[in-house]
Order: sequence, then C-alpha cells, then structure tokens
Amino acid sequence: MPQTIVAQATATGLAGLTVIRISGDDAFMIADKCFRGKKKIADAKSHTILYGDFVDFSKCHTELDDVEIIDDVTVSIFKAPNSYTGENTVEFGSHGGNVIPMKIIQTLLKAGCKHAEPGEFTRRAFINKKINLVQAEAVIDIIHSISLPTARTSARQMRGGITQELENLRKKLIDFASMLELELDFADENIDLISNSELLHCLENAISLCKNLSNSYQTSNILREGFFVAIVGKPNAGKSTLFNSLLNKERAIVSEIAGTTRDYITEYLIINDIPLKLIDTAGLRETLDTVEIAGIKFAQNTLEQANLILFLNDISLGENFSDELFYEITNRYPNSDFLLVQNKCDLLNTVGAYSICPLNKKSEYNSPIHNETENTIYISAKNTNDLELLKKRIGEFAKKATENTNDILLNERQYFKLLEIEKSLLSAKTLLLETTNSEIIPTEIIAIEIRNAGRLLGELTGETWNEEVLNSIFSRFCIGK
Amino acid sequence: MPQTIVAQATATGLAGLTVIRISGDDAFMIADKCFRGKKKIADAKSHTILYGDFVDFSKCHTELDDVEIIDDVTVSIFKAPNSYTGENTVEFGSHGGNVIPMKIIQTLLKAGCKHAEPGEFTRRAFINKKINLVQAEAVIDIIHSISLPTARTSARQMRGGITQELENLRKKLIDFASMLELELDFADENIDLISNSELLHCLENAISLCKNLSNSYQTSNILREGFFVAIVGKPNAGKSTLFNSLLNKERAIVSEIAGTTRDYITEYLIINDIPLKLIDTAGLRETLDTVEIAGIKFAQNTLEQANLILFLNDISLGENFSDELFYEITNRYPNSDFLLVQNKCDLLNTVGAYSICPLNKKSEYNSPIHNETENTIYISAKNTNDLELLKKRIGEFAKKATENTNDILLNERQYFKLLEIEKSLLSAKTLLLETTNSEIIPTEIIAIEIRNAGRLLGELTGETWNEEVLNSIFSRFCIGK
Repeated sequence: MPQTIVAQATATGLAGLTVIRISGDDAFMIADKCFRGKKKIADAKSHTILYGDFVDFSKCHTELDDVEIIDDVTVSIFKAPNSYTGENTVEFGSHGGNVIPMKIIQTLLKAGCKHAEPGEFTRRAFINKKINLVQAEAVIDIIHSISLPTARTSARQMRGGITQELENLRKKLIDFASMLELELDFADENIDLISNSELLHCLENAISLCKNLSNSYQTSNILREGFFVAIVGKPNAGKSTLFNSLLNKERAIVSEIAGTTRDYITEYLIINDIPLKLIDTAGLRETLDTVEIAGIKFAQNTLEQANLILFLNDISLGENFSDELFYEITNRYPNSDFLLVQNKCDLLNTVGAYSICPLNKKSEYNSPIHNETENTIYISAKNTNDLELLKKRIGEFAKKATENTNDILLNERQYFKLLEIEKSLLSAKTLLLETTNSEIIPTEIIAIEIRNAGRLLGELTGETWNEEVLNSIFSRFCIGK
Repeated sequence: MPQTIVAQATATGLAGLTVIRISGDDAFMIADKCFRGKKKIADAKSHTILYGDFVDFSKCHTELDDVEIIDDVTVSIFKAPNSYTGENTVEFGSHGGNVIPMKIIQTLLKAGCKHAEPGEFTRRAFINKKINLVQAEAVIDIIHSISLPTARTSARQMRGGITQELENLRKKLIDFASMLELELDFADENIDLISNSELLHCLENAISLCKNLSNSYQTSNILREGFFVAIVGKPNAGKSTLFNSLLNKERAIVSEIAGTTRDYITEYLIINDIPLKLIDTAGLRETLDTVEIAGIKFAQNTLEQANLILFLNDISLGENFSDELFYEITNRYPNSDFLLVQNKCDLLNTVGAYSICPLNKKSEYNSPIHNETENTIYISAKNTNDLELLKKRIGEFAKKATENTNDILLNERQYFKLLEIEKSLLSAKTLLLETTNSEIIPTEIIAIEIRNAGRLLGELTGETWNEEVLNSIFSRFCIGK
C-alpha cells in the first residue's frame, strides 16, 4: 500500500491562495489530525468543501488543549476512486506566500504523509488506470505549453485523443497474431483463420497510421519549443534593427517562458497563435564579416535547427549584393525554409521607386531563386506596414510547418516507439508478401513480428510498462502534479 | 451593483494546479457560460465541487455546436453570503503554466467579468462586512510574512484578535460622549449621568490600551521586516568571515523573500523563529579604515536602523584595540542594542588561553562596558561551537525585542491612528482633570474629544471609512486576493 503523499499543487510565491494536495489511503485520517471544523473530513461527502482551521496537532495533547492555529483553510474532499489520482484526496486551500504553505506541509509530514516525488500524483493516476501513459505525458505538455495550439493539442491528447485508436490497433494486432498462432496448431489441416489479404490490409493501415503520427514529430517540436526563425545576412544588412522591430510590440506576450534558456540574441513572439523563437545572428557579425564562408561554421549549430532563415540583403547596395553568401547558406541548410528579405528599400534613391520596386526589380532580375516571389520580400525594416507584411509571410511559413499536427504532440519517447512499431509492421508485411509469393516463410515468424508490434504499442500507451520508463517520464514533472 | 470580478488566485508559474476565482452576483451565470459538466453551476449546492470542461463559449453558437475545450477543470462553488467575499464565488481549478490560466481568464472576461484590482476580493469581503479593516490588513501580512511568528500573529489578527477589544472601547467612548452631551440638555438641573471618576477610569484604561498597542509598532516592524543586525568593526576584525559563517547553513531557509531588496551585504537568516536581517558593513571597510569617525557617517543610515549592532574586535591585537571606535558608535546609536564580539580568540598564543579567556580576561579588564558580560562575547568565528553560542546570544536579543507583540502586527496606518486616538484621549483626560479642579471647562468640549477618539477608533477598525483609505490599503495587495 503506497504511503499518503503531500505537495504544494500551485506555484510558489506571494498570492492570495495556495493549494496543498494530499493523496492516499490515509488522506482523510491524516487531514483530520490537522483540521478543526464543524465536521470531520472523513465524515464529509466526496466533492464537498469544508471550512475551518488548520492546526499544528503536535502542539496539543488532548482534544481540549488550546491548539496552535496556522491558518484558516478550505478543504476540498475527493473520495476514491473519484479523484485525479484515483485515491482519497484532500486539497487544503490556504493563504499564499512563503511561510504558511511550508508550515502546513511540515505539519502534514509530521502527521504521517511523505513528500511527493515530481509527477507522483499523475503517476498514481496512471497506476490506478485513471489515465494512460500518453495522457499522462500530455499533462506535462499542457503545463509547459507556450502557445494556445500547443495547449489545445495537449488538452485533446490528455482527454484520450489518438490513444483509443492506438489501443484498438493494438488489440487488433494481438488478435491477428493469436489467430496466426492458432493456425499453426491446425497446420496439418491447412485451415486459414485469417486471409492473407485481410492481414495485409490491416498491416498497411497500421503502417500508414504510424507514419502519419511519426510525421507530426517535427510539428510537435515546433509547437512545444517554437517555430525557429533565424535572421542572417551580411553586416549592416539591418539584422538587429529587424530583430528589435519584430519584437517591439510582441515581447511582453511571452515574457515568462520557463525552461527556455535566453541569451541576448533569442526572443519569443507569437504570430497566428504559433510561438516563434527568433534568433538574431548579430553575435556572428564579426565572423560573417571577415570570412563569409568560414564564419558560417560558427553559426552552423544555430542555423541547423532553424525552421526558417530570414536572409537579409541591403538592397541599397544592390539587389544581388549578398548573393554569394545567400547561395552558400541555402546550400548548407537544404532542410530550412528561406525568405530573402530585400531590406532598406527606403534608401533606393529614385522617388517612388520603393513603392513599385518589387514589380520593377523583379522584371530586371534573373536569378532563379529571386524569381520565386513567395521566397522574396521587399521591405524597409523601419516601415510598420512592411513589418506587418513580413510578419504575415513568416506566419504563413509557420502555419504551413505546423499544419500536420494530427492532433498529437509527440515526444521523443513516443516518436522512437512509433518508429520501432513501424519497423516491426514493415517486417511483417515484407514476410507476408514473401509468403504469398513463395510459401517459404513460416506463419510463426510473421506472428512474432505482429505480436512484437502489439507489445510496442502497449508500451507506447502504457498498457505494459516498467519502473524505469515511468521514472524517466515522471521525473520531468513538477512536484505537486 | 458591483460587476463580477475575475483573477488568478494562485501564484503564476509552472505548476500542477492554478486556481482562477470569480466573485459577484453574476458569478454562476458567467461561469456556466464557460462550463460543460453533468450539472449546471447555478444548480449546484454551495460548498460542492463539480468536474467538467472549461470551454471557449464564444466559439460555439448553438448548444449543439462543437465547443473548443480549453482544459478540464474542477469548479468549487460558494454561494453568498458563505464565501470569502460574501458574494457568489466560483473557483476554477485548471492546469498551471502560462497559457491555460491566461486563456481561461480571457474567456471569462469575454463572458462578462471584469479583471479584479489588487485586493478587490478582500475589499469586497470588507464592504460586505465579512471582515473589518484590521483583519483585512492582516491578510496582507500573513501572505507577506517571512517567519512563523509573523504569520501566527497575522493569523490571530485576521481572526479578530484585538479588534473586538477596540470595538468595545469605541462603543464605550461613544456612549460616554452621548451621556456627556445628554447632561448638557439637563445642564440647569445639574444632573450627572456619569461620574467624573468613572469617566476618568475609562479614559485611563483606553489610554493604556492605546499605549500598549502602539508600543508594539517597533516589534511589528521587526516581525514584518526582520530583526536588523549590523556587523561593524575595524578592518580585518573578521566581519565578512563572521557574516558568511552565520549564514552558511541558514541561507537556504529564506531563499525567496519577495519585496526585499537584496544587495551584496544583506542576507536573511532565522533564529528562534525570528527572521534576522544581517548587514555586513564590509563595504564600509575603506572609510572605516581611513578615518574612523568620519567614515561612520557613511554607515549612518544603515546603523540607525539596526536593532542590534555586533561590534567586532580582533582580540589578538588587544582586547581594547577598537575601544575608540566602539565608544564612538555606541554614543552615536544609543537606541541600538550592542554586543561586543571579541573575535579571533583562537589566535591568542597562550595554550588553553582561549577556553578560559572570558573569565581570565574579564578580571583584567576594567572598562565599564566590558564588565557587562551580557553585552560581551568571546569567540572565534571559525569555531562552530562559538558560532552557536553567538547565535544563541543574538537570538536572545531578538526574542527580547519581539516580546512585546500584544498579539498585534501594527502597520503604519494603524500606528498613527493609535497615536491620534491617544492624543484625543489625553486631551479629554486633561480637560476632565481641569474641570474637576476648577469647574471652568464645559462638558461639551470633553464630549467632543471623546467622540473624536471614538470616531478615530472607527476609522482604525473600518467602522467608518472612505474610498481614499480603502484605495491606499488595498493597493498593497496582490491581484487575486
């Protein structure tokens, strides 16, 4: 029987309210030791709230002693199995700040609780089959989400999302494997419990489902960590100005994103509900300046991760002034999207040239890259309208990159598990096709691969699990969830 | 009818749980717009908890539309007048983090709430007579408290504490004033409704109560902001070593005290449950070094506020090596307690001299100050036992300074109000005594002073109030309380 656990469920800090949660078989008994109200917690109905005093029970020895009152509290009561963890749960609502919540937790520890490990409440919810593993992992994502679409996808995933589909598939695969194994028992009689075409159809559907899901891994990363936009260009192309102009009004929106390391060149903004991580390679200026090609090595790590590279050219020095560097970079990072930003259009000295420049210049300009207008934009970073235009273009790139969400926010564990499943399914398919063609592959071996895929699916959803996997998952949680 | 208000009640940050509170006549109607559960919030009983989905109602136009689910939430329901504010109150418990709580608040704003001002929930509790003003102010103190005794005193004050006594006194004074006024109507008949001695007795009791309370102002400050210990002494007396040794193990305990400005020489530690603010005047070393007396001016502001000054002397250079500076400082700060710390006893080169030094040295030493052993201690800052001894001595000073709490944590407003009350009462008493002696002071004037004291008492407890006072009090609150 696991011990009753306690932890602060809300964030630490000065606030009107702090909630301290305890969960376990003895939750009501322990809570009653520390509570003085009109009614005992153990006698109250589930989903009701009592009001009274939280007291330091250790300071009084009989019922009649004067007790030391720590705070007045509300007590929310959830009886097993109708709680988050599936266990008896009590939530004390006390005043916030640093002293009272700490004293309440200390008292509950003295009363018989142990302090919860990170994620232990959710781990118990999983152990007690209130949620599966994919749902549990979505809980982390919803708390850490940096944008609404991320939170929304996590919320759906937490509520079941694709897990039912995966669970159905798992059962189907295990049924198929069992049938194949059963056929072996009747091998002499040559009975087919399942047709090869039926099995092939199932495998192909399963493979396509896995592919579809694993494809959303990159999207998931973008939703989780932001669409990564790097600003590059020659010195004085206006990188820092653009960086600051883009952020100016948006900076406050994502002022506090914990867990993200911020240096002086990284900032977040949100366009179209998608969080954008904006990197100014201003710090690389010197190296880019001195040796254009060698210098890029320094920026390599940064640019390799970029989803979109904004390449700035100072058009007042010529529309193709930075072409050499541009080609170098586009060749080096074939996986990134590029947007060539012809900047400083306001400096073009022909009156009116700026406003008509895109069309004018385009006709004069024959570079195969520059012809693609969806990859080129003419702006002045000082012009508000131009900035809105640029943001719109960046937003389009970000939207395209996050279209393929499949309503799932894959994490690394889930992604690699899906790849393994796909591999087993593909093996089974190959073997099946060979069997069909030559009748030399024993059904047994196909059954093993299918059963293996089913087992891996079970690991994905948490139908089967081991301590090590749970430890690694729940250690990423905050304490109190 | 005040609008229904909304605010996050718990601290902001990554956490399992965040609570968003709404309060007002329309709380249930507004909450129901955003909630989909088995039951409507308006139909639920007070002090019960529902579970369901928080939805963005603005995204669906009919009951049948697919709604956008933001999170799964618990809903705690408190019906007027049985809530903190005295109004209908709903508390949504959602996942923590940055996105979900913000989206929930935005949705509730769209649904008809207005965002709460700082302290607006408590202000409404006051307006609805759930608590008086002194209790309301104790709520700030309990949240901001930096030690357990502070929190404990605030808790008692929040629960009524001395306010009942003040309220009784107010009623008594007003009764007396009324009786005196009534006597005027019967002036011709020379009827005494109240004897002078009875009135005098009442006034003296009232004055003594006010004095007693206002005396605890300094203690309140110590409890609220910490007992202020300054470490001074000549260069190389071992100030920084002592500073660091004292803090070494205690530093973590008060790692996060918001609202306190920390510079490199200020740290907090807790001894005997009392928070200590420790100031190392190491930064003043140079000035103290060059000109002992002039240099002190620089430290003046710091030392003026100190409750206890630890004066360090390097005993290896002689027990009276720093006497000149010591006298200078003790004369300058007559209101501070002093502890002369004879440091570096380990450097005394007689074998065994250290352990017997206090007794030995005392007999040799004739300075009138040094004779007082409760104000002198012989230590080596490198010796753990000595440090414990020093801490014990500091703790005794701190305890003595905080003994006079009277179970009240006075703030500035309350303190100055008490001084005003005392002043009126003293005037009344003086007038009364003069009347007794010479019969020349009209009863009318005494009645005015007594009524004035009663009125001021009403302002103290909030029996009478104005917008300005409330604004100034509640602006010190955090939002969501």
